[in-house]
Amino acid sequence: MSYDDNNIFAKILRGEIPSHKVYEDEHSLAFMDVMPQAAGHALVIPKQGSRNILDADPETLSRLIPVVQKVAIAAKAAFSADGVTVVQFNEPAAGQTVYHLHFHVIPRMEGVALKPHSGTMEDQAVLAANAEKLRKALAQ
Amino acid sequence: MSYDDNNIFAKILRGEIPSHKVYEDEHSLAFMDVMPQAAGHALVIPKQGSRNILDADPETLSRLIPVVQKVAIAAKAAFSADGVTVVQFNEPAAGQTVYHLHFHVIPRMEGVALKPHSGTMEDQAVLAANAEKLRKALAQ
Repeated sequence: MSYDDNNIFAKILRGEIPSHKVYEDEHSLAFMDVMPQAAGHALVIPKQGSRNILDADPETLSRLIPVVQKVAIAAKAAFSADGVTVVQFNEPAAGQTVYHLHFHVIPRMEGVALKPHSGTMEDQAVLAANAEKLRKALAQ
Repeated sequence: MSYDDNNIFAKILRGEIPSHKVYEDEHSLAFMDVMPQAAGHALVIPKQGSRNILDADPETLSRLIPVVQKVAIAAKAAFSADGVTVVQFNEPAAGQTVYHLHFHVIPRMEGVALKPHSGTMEDQAVLAANAEKLRKALAQ
């Protein structure tokens, strides 16, 4: 399957639809997942288009994963989380729903199970507030 | 929390306990998860010791993720999988049970849910056969 730049994340990258951004550099963007599996659930994507990890440029991956790390460290601090789950889905059988490579960074609390992937749309004010917390932690 | 090199994966790296290896290079090792969440479930680890992504050297991550990609591509082929889940747990609240950074690479079949993490020990002959399939796919 090839990359189709009509996906939602490509539109976010082009500024055609809004997102709650938390980090951006030359090659990467991080923003809040609108259907969070836990408070503070963020997504980290490369600006380079690929469907998922299976067709990605290895250099793109190598540049992206330190950003995933930055966001994971910041997410743990910002949400006083006990842990962080990093997950990346490839193809529908794995639960992928948007076909632009992305890493989920999900703060975890002891004893609290994740909500379903692609579950309920979060309130925009909550997303904005969590984005602000994450930006502050990333700035430190 | 600091890194403790008495963990199982450090022992595998030192050759003190056996594993079903599928890939090795100067910086990385991949081997079969002995409690697979699906057939062909493999783990990719750096030789450099870190507890998880939160304390890892960014360069170690950048070198490791193309190996995760290689194993994901090979796993999809080797097990005729419909998709691949890549997941990386940080701290007990996220489900981490071995405190040496590792990425899970799990072949996924349409409509088949993952078995629980750290569930049932797989038969050694099955692990050996799956390792052989994955090594063959990695060699191509």
